[in-house]
Amino acid sequence: MEQTQLAVKLVLNAWENHIKRADLLFGMLSDEQLQREISPGKNTGVYLLGHLTAIHDALFDILGLGERSYTTLDNTFIKTPDKSGLEMPSVEFLRKYWLDVNVKLKEAFSKIQPSQWFERHMHVSDEDFQKEPHRNKLNVLISRTNHLAYHWGQLILLK
Amino acid sequence: MEQTQLAVKLVLNAWENHIKRADLLFGMLSDEQLQREISPGKNTGVYLLGHLTAIHDALFDILGLGERSYTTLDNTFIKTPDKSGLEMPSVEFLRKYWLDVNVKLKEAFSKIQPSQWFERHMHVSDEDFQKEPHRNKLNVLISRTNHLAYHWGQLILLK
Repeated sequence: MEQTQLAVKLVLNAWENHIKRADLLFGMLSDEQLQREISPGKNTGVYLLGHLTAIHDALFDILGLGERSYTTLDNTFIKTPDKSGLEMPSVEFLRKYWLDVNVKLKEAFSKIQPSQWFERHMHVSDEDFQKEPHRNKLNVLISRTNHLAYHWGQLILLK
Repeated sequence: MEQTQLAVKLVLNAWENHIKRADLLFGMLSDEQLQREISPGKNTGVYLLGHLTAIHDALFDILGLGERSYTTLDNTFIKTPDKSGLEMPSVEFLRKYWLDVNVKLKEAFSKIQPSQWFERHMHVSDEDFQKEPHRNKLNVLISRTNHLAYHWGQLILLK
């Protein structure tokens, strides 16, 4: 395998491994455990579940993969912190959304050719991308994997 | 910039950004804050500081970068969980070790050519590497960056 392809594969593997670990963790945590705070006064598990779902759903936009499914989550789980008093979907629905978004992403990623990961992401203009070629789709995926690892480190405290 | 070089640069950037963020966080946390648990009954900040330092120091081995500086940390911070009763260096020393290890890594990384990141890491044999070319140095760095993000997500709870 050629080095560029291999590099893309490593980044995709890291993403998939983290999705698997998060799936496993969400599967182990009861609804009641998810309602708890990861540490006193900090975010609840259910907020982080919604937050990760919304951020992953937004990958459809930034990677140019097509229509998003759950834009309605953004207000509660991205634009507003936890305990805002805004209405949340039930844990049951959030669990379904999480699985659904990640299955759809997996399917979409499987259709992306290695070289396409080096194309600009959708939040950078053509002009800026000429000057800053690191603002590509691969970088977005690296960044979102680290974001997932960051919150996974918090969610695991609920066990 | 050629795609392989660019991919390596993205992975290195992600590593450096996380080191910077962790440095900033450790700088903000007092010794007293670091002594606290990230959540009741879980690891203390000082344990995670020692753990991350030991894991990063071990990169000298697995990436074949030369002699390690702090192998004595492994017993307390890798092989044994927190609150083992084993003696720990003072927070003051651990802070110095953390900075020292990461400065040394930065210097060592600056001498690695992009194509060398695709060579086998030192915990895989030549024979196994032929069959599993993803077990390279770049993959180790991706994995350690995620590991840092994971624990950074926990350490930030001490703020």
